[in-house]
Amino acid sequence: MQKQKVLINGERLKEELERFAKFGRTENNGVTRLALSEEDRRARDYFRSCCEELGMTVKVDDMGCMYATLSGTENKPPILIGSHLDSVKKGGRFDGVLGVLAGLEVVRTLVDHNIKPNIPISLVNFTNEEGARFEPSMMASGVLSGKFDKSLMLKKKDAAGISFEEALHAIGYAGDEENRLREGSAYLEMHIEQGPILEKEALTIGVVECVVGMACYEIEVTGESDHAGTTPMNMRKDALFATNNLINEIRSRLGSLDEELVFTIGRVNVYPSIHTVIPNKVVFTLEARHKDMEIVNKVKDIIHGLPNLGVNEGCEIKTTKLWERDTVWFEPEICELLEQSAQSLGYSKKRMVSGAGHDAQFIASYVPSAMLFVPSVKGKSHCEEELTTWEDCEKGVNVILDTVLALLAK
Amino acid sequence: MQKQKVLINGERLKEELERFAKFGRTENNGVTRLALSEEDRRARDYFRSCCEELGMTVKVDDMGCMYATLSGTENKPPILIGSHLDSVKKGGRFDGVLGVLAGLEVVRTLVDHNIKPNIPISLVNFTNEEGARFEPSMMASGVLSGKFDKSLMLKKKDAAGISFEEALHAIGYAGDEENRLREGSAYLEMHIEQGPILEKEALTIGVVECVVGMACYEIEVTGESDHAGTTPMNMRKDALFATNNLINEIRSRLGSLDEELVFTIGRVNVYPSIHTVIPNKVVFTLEARHKDMEIVNKVKDIIHGLPNLGVNEGCEIKTTKLWERDTVWFEPEICELLEQSAQSLGYSKKRMVSGAGHDAQFIASYVPSAMLFVPSVKGKSHCEEELTTWEDCEKGVNVILDTVLALLAK
Repeated sequence: MQKQKVLINGERLKEELERFAKFGRTENNGVTRLALSEEDRRARDYFRSCCEELGMTVKVDDMGCMYATLSGTENKPPILIGSHLDSVKKGGRFDGVLGVLAGLEVVRTLVDHNIKPNIPISLVNFTNEEGARFEPSMMASGVLSGKFDKSLMLKKKDAAGISFEEALHAIGYAGDEENRLREGSAYLEMHIEQGPILEKEALTIGVVECVVGMACYEIEVTGESDHAGTTPMNMRKDALFATNNLINEIRSRLGSLDEELVFTIGRVNVYPSIHTVIPNKVVFTLEARHKDMEIVNKVKDIIHGLPNLGVNEGCEIKTTKLWERDTVWFEPEICELLEQSAQSLGYSKKRMVSGAGHDAQFIASYVPSAMLFVPSVKGKSHCEEELTTWEDCEKGVNVILDTVLALLAK
Repeated sequence: MQKQKVLINGERLKEELERFAKFGRTENNGVTRLALSEEDRRARDYFRSCCEELGMTVKVDDMGCMYATLSGTENKPPILIGSHLDSVKKGGRFDGVLGVLAGLEVVRTLVDHNIKPNIPISLVNFTNEEGARFEPSMMASGVLSGKFDKSLMLKKKDAAGISFEEALHAIGYAGDEENRLREGSAYLEMHIEQGPILEKEALTIGVVECVVGMACYEIEVTGESDHAGTTPMNMRKDALFATNNLINEIRSRLGSLDEELVFTIGRVNVYPSIHTVIPNKVVFTLEARHKDMEIVNKVKDIIHGLPNLGVNEGCEIKTTKLWERDTVWFEPEICELLEQSAQSLGYSKKRMVSGAGHDAQFIASYVPSAMLFVPSVKGKSHCEEELTTWEDCEKGVNVILDTVLALLAK
């Protein structure tokens, strides 16, 4: 079919985003909509009704993922647009839901303009992307892509002891395995950036080329806990001072590898953490992310070498790899289409990477996928202050629409 | 009276130390004898019976302190020998109790040799030196010396909500205010070193010249908690990295002040302490101790200057003084006597400082006081491994005895 030039209804998109923000709204204008919660159920039910109103058929799979399909004139694998409706505790109004509502607005616009797609279009709501109630994150897309074992995932429990499987049945979203996403012509996921780059560079659209690879380690430093007042400095085995040396080495060595490398010492526990006692143990995590796995491998070499730098102050240093993941590269052809759409719409744009994980990274293993970012004000996400301007939301969805039209016209 | 040359009974001292170790013995040969606990009561009752057997009169004051007095032929202020019978949770068999049993063994030796002192000799058990059940430490000696307010102390509660006053009555050790220690010719406190210096230098006796002055600060570093994967290194306000810079400055600046200065970053809390989130807050304590208050004042200046060093990585730095104390110098004449006694007994010795706090530091405000240290194996204390050899215990008590005889002969 021939590509048409249409634009979405920005006002309608905004109203729908505001309506979804009511499903779990917090005091400070954020959202708590944990996976399979009552708030999640209400959001799902409403989403289903919106889709059915558009003449779409809605199916649910055995992980609770929802697929709303607008049929195509040809029997081809669908173009998929999606993300997730769940949020973290006290999260924002845009993370996840924006990618689902982008799809809804795209279909509404097609219906408005009486455009009947040759290829079916399916909107997807992936269950439990956040992993905030049931670990791990990206649970359902992980099962769909064969990364996670379904039976293990069904047994995962929340803090109250309720299993994922129980919660799935409780909200009425335990569907059939045969409804699972099995193939697609393309998967498009629009998401807030969750970082400061687009805003800092005053750009509107980020065409995401990959989800970066990473390695995460736990480093344990063991010294001796002696009396703070009676132990001369040169007779101490201070695990905190040793850790301080290690952090100096980590910052110096990792900091000079590549300017796009990000590394974070996030979880830190000092023991016994009493003001009059020299710390005898520090346990901390170090994670690093980069699109080039060569760089990630260099990071791993540096971490493995930390115990042998002679900066241990008499302490023992143990490094344990918690996990790692390879960079997931998105489909270049779809990235190209997204960029062309942004270009033709006159929006500023850049190619970028995703430092955060998304369902798209798993779906990419069997469906040609790509992602699009819109700016996060001050780079904030997973918090009530999370914000993307209505204008940027609208522009992002216009790019998705234009790319869908381009895919239909291929 | 003329000074006699006698020695204590080392075997009896050892037996008594072992007997007291049964009052609250732990699985790993340590002691849990919290102040005013049932274990403390049994230790007190037994101590009282030992003293009464020697013909001493035992009195108890309103803070539960015990005074066992061997009368003198002249009506002079007593020579005091003491320490404390309470321990920390899972503490050792020597801390505190050694100083009380040193006094008991001294009196037993005098009685053995039919030496009737001209000056009364009082053994003192100060209540709640450790502060492990009821804060603060050195509670009773603090009240006696006017540092702490009695009515506030009586209201202090343990973790179970029992007040100090209730516990005092419960074990039957609430005595009269008129029994308080009001004057003394001298106060001698023998204690384990709780540090590694004597062992390291292969010395037996430490003559303690002072309890060092100190300052303790809390330092709060506030940055921003952004996503570990999406925030470029140069756009972060990482409170942990700022803290790392501060620790570098602290170590470099304090480390070059004086080699006898000890400083410790003991309590450290990092927030939110999640591996994928850049830390937005670190709160840590910094305490430093030195006998020369000029040095302690320099430390304070350095701490106050930390926020202005330009190493804050965009974070805010707030320093709050938690407390400080001046150096307490002991009576030079008594230190001299202790040193002479060690010398005449042929024991190796040195002058040293106490980095830890002791009841003697409060009693010194109104009674001429001094302390004697014996070696701690590996410098350990406040733990079940705490150990001082029987031989060193015996030698230490011999020095106390010889010094008492010297004081009697003055």
